[in-house]
Amino acid sequence: MDFISEFKEKTARVNRALEMLLPKAEVYPEVIHQAIRYSVFAGGKRIRPVLTLAAAELLKGDLDLIMPAACALELIHTYTLVHDDLPAMDNDDLRRGMPTCHIKFGEDMAILAGDALQSMAFELLTKIEIGENISAEQLLLAIRELAQAIGTKGVIGGQVVDTISAANIIDKKTLEYIHQNKTGALIGVAVRIGAILACAGRENIERLDGYSKHLGMVFQITDDILDVTASEKVLGKPSGSDIRNNKGTFPSLYGIDEAGKMAAEE
Amino acid sequence: MDFISEFKEKTARVNRALEMLLPKAEVYPEVIHQAIRYSVFAGGKRIRPVLTLAAAELLKGDLDLIMPAACALELIHTYTLVHDDLPAMDNDDLRRGMPTCHIKFGEDMAILAGDALQSMAFELLTKIEIGENISAEQLLLAIRELAQAIGTKGVIGGQVVDTISAANIIDKKTLEYIHQNKTGALIGVAVRIGAILACAGRENIERLDGYSKHLGMVFQITDDILDVTASEKVLGKPSGSDIRNNKGTFPSLYGIDEAGKMAAEE
Repeated sequence: MDFISEFKEKTARVNRALEMLLPKAEVYPEVIHQAIRYSVFAGGKRIRPVLTLAAAELLKGDLDLIMPAACALELIHTYTLVHDDLPAMDNDDLRRGMPTCHIKFGEDMAILAGDALQSMAFELLTKIEIGENISAEQLLLAIRELAQAIGTKGVIGGQVVDTISAANIIDKKTLEYIHQNKTGALIGVAVRIGAILACAGRENIERLDGYSKHLGMVFQITDDILDVTASEKVLGKPSGSDIRNNKGTFPSLYGIDEAGKMAAEE
Repeated sequence: MDFISEFKEKTARVNRALEMLLPKAEVYPEVIHQAIRYSVFAGGKRIRPVLTLAAAELLKGDLDLIMPAACALELIHTYTLVHDDLPAMDNDDLRRGMPTCHIKFGEDMAILAGDALQSMAFELLTKIEIGENISAEQLLLAIRELAQAIGTKGVIGGQVVDTISAANIIDKKTLEYIHQNKTGALIGVAVRIGAILACAGRENIERLDGYSKHLGMVFQITDDILDVTASEKVLGKPSGSDIRNNKGTFPSLYGIDEAGKMAAEE
């Protein structure tokens, strides 16, 4: 199977698992489960869970056992999107061509859905089957890595610096900090968790780490370029929202051509 | 030592531990750590962590080892308060006589501080020392119980029903659901986590559970009564905010006298 087919196959597996693992929309109180499902099934590419599975596969891990961890990564990603879109944050009405969670369900439900998605991610991780393949110690390490990666020294840190920098011209060091943390930290830990749960030794994890850092940068630069060049139809969100919000991006700092070259190099 | 002195002594221990475990206010990006510390040290009574310690003590657990779990409970509690106070939720400007987090640091930082407090709580739990006294399996169980208790079948569930019921007259069953979940679930799991980490058998946990459920109800009824009767000075927040928000409370459903009797009975 080629790369694209493998990616698509894993995406489909993740979608089936999410469908099974998330509370049904009819479970009381219904509205929160509707908001959660609406946001999770809004057409994400499942890049993070696929990376978790890919890393685990490379190290001969049991993908069925590890699947709840992969799904946990997607829930965390979704929670950050739902909160990022809020009026007090990026104030985005559309995501992937659909009304954002707070437009559809109200701001209060969007706050609560994001909060619930975070705890649900940790809950999924704790439900991974302990036994011959995965020890309780390995699982605890995976949970710790996730908690650290999404905290103030990871995703939230990047988001905070992005937010307070919004109206200012920022230097390249700050821009790199934002992307390495806001986006890179979750991409990185997706790979690490796959490796940890596939019982990887320290050396393996370090090697995968370098790989995932580059991947995170490529991902972010491409996203920035698309924000400038793509039309709303392609993006599924209003284009130029970074410019509107005065955000420092790779194209605004380096120009589109140079940013394109950087992505290719990474 | 009498009950009050023991409570005060444990509160002081929790405060010292929180001081040590939370990132310093000077750590980059500073504003989020300032917002987190501001909210955590806004004068909470530390009821939940004290309950964790008290349950552990009863079962001869090692309180020093268990302390990060107790602190995790307080971080979760603080995160729910910070998000509850947001304009899109209860829209409260004051808490315990001080400006709420979003008034002091802005709505965006309050959303992010709440998010970070949640992941920090899980991070603290994963850092508990594994060894003779606490096994990795016990710790995983504690993390799972916490994640479940604060999810859509616990704290968030109660918060959701509270929010969607705000403008309506609600029945007693709904009111009980709200309080058992919004407040009771975290009180209950505080006790359970203390018992689990002190190596309690199933029977001990069940017994403590009954105790903690009654305690949760007493706590909530008293809080509701205070909201109606106390002045802003005593409460540290505008009194009558439940009435302003049309919230179903024990006094509004049963009258103040009857609610008082109910608390005493519990």
